[in-house]
Amino acid sequence: MNIAVFGTGSVGQALANRLAELSHQVVIGTRNVENALAKTKPDGMGTPPVSVFLESHPSISLHTFADAAKDASVIVLATMGHGAKEALSAAGNLDGKIILDITNPLDFSKGGLPTLFASNDTSLGEQLQTAFPTAHFVKSLNTMYNGLMVNPRALGEDSTVFVSGNEADAKAVVTGILKEFGWKDSEILDLGDITTARGTESLLPVWLRVYSATKNGFFNFKVATGK
Amino acid sequence: MNIAVFGTGSVGQALANRLAELSHQVVIGTRNVENALAKTKPDGMGTPPVSVFLESHPSISLHTFADAAKDASVIVLATMGHGAKEALSAAGNLDGKIILDITNPLDFSKGGLPTLFASNDTSLGEQLQTAFPTAHFVKSLNTMYNGLMVNPRALGEDSTVFVSGNEADAKAVVTGILKEFGWKDSEILDLGDITTARGTESLLPVWLRVYSATKNGFFNFKVATGK
Repeated sequence: MNIAVFGTGSVGQALANRLAELSHQVVIGTRNVENALAKTKPDGMGTPPVSVFLESHPSISLHTFADAAKDASVIVLATMGHGAKEALSAAGNLDGKIILDITNPLDFSKGGLPTLFASNDTSLGEQLQTAFPTAHFVKSLNTMYNGLMVNPRALGEDSTVFVSGNEADAKAVVTGILKEFGWKDSEILDLGDITTARGTESLLPVWLRVYSATKNGFFNFKVATGK
Repeated sequence: MNIAVFGTGSVGQALANRLAELSHQVVIGTRNVENALAKTKPDGMGTPPVSVFLESHPSISLHTFADAAKDASVIVLATMGHGAKEALSAAGNLDGKIILDITNPLDFSKGGLPTLFASNDTSLGEQLQTAFPTAHFVKSLNTMYNGLMVNPRALGEDSTVFVSGNEADAKAVVTGILKEFGWKDSEILDLGDITTARGTESLLPVWLRVYSATKNGFFNFKVATGK
């Protein structure tokens, strides 16, 4: 498939790398190509700049959001949560495009552990679906470390990836990608429509506290049923 | 131990039953004993009225919150979230008492799936600790169906119970009770102080959506690490 990955950070790089490995046609979208390429230092999380990533991934090219989206049937939304709406606004015509939404509404502005800027009776996922009604949003993969998103078998035990979205066909496409990544059918839990993103985005507060307590982000939530 | 269980619903009954089985001295606390005993029909969830429970549990008696709390070293707080503060206010002197807080700040007033009346940058757990500063709150067990709280081995696989609280000694007492219930050391995850209840209370929105999607509440979250 033609897939545009929006976002040049660690999540975007992990997804772009893995999708290209799986022989998809991958482009990365960013707000300003020149600015993105001008970065020469790792970000605060130690992720190399996108220029370094592109050097080692010659099949992947960097474009504006609009140019990246043009031929893509799937957009992997891997920007910061607060940049998601602007990125999609810049992307042009989204009619019928499938948006695999990995974002979380994290608000880092207050210091300490981030809070959520959309929660409880709303979610970023449904706000984006409302703002871009002709695109088909599927929220998934937003509840774990990016290394596990694209390689769930690395965990060494089964865990859960949630799927939320209004369109069955779009969820089927995303589920197909999840399976290419190595997710088992039994690990994929379709929670229902996009409002169920209220549930999965609310895993972030507990994810962050597990990470703080254990100093280890290499875990995933499992819905354990004994089966 | 002398343990007072606050709340006559399904959670309170499950905890009182199990603690008495384990040979603790158990009393149940309620706002108005006469009113509680006057109920003759199961509640909306099918839980039998407390009078039926008491008939089959002759070692357990029902008292006002204050009378129940008087000799208790541990109070199991199993009221509705919105009734928690009032129950503790009615309990009298809480100095040094350990409160095993199982409540969740669920707001059912809007219909549909409940939202949280405390979330994101606060939690019911920390609000109660602030309101009753001389008691030692330990938030735990609030993230699962009550049958699994008191009998985790019934699930047939390992899962996770979270612990949040400011006092190490109080957490040790609660952890001891968890182990009596059958929780393994490796399943008990101490997240830190009482503010980490923001994390575990925020599991409710996803718990509710897993339950809605699967029509099955017999599951628990596991922090899967592959170990």
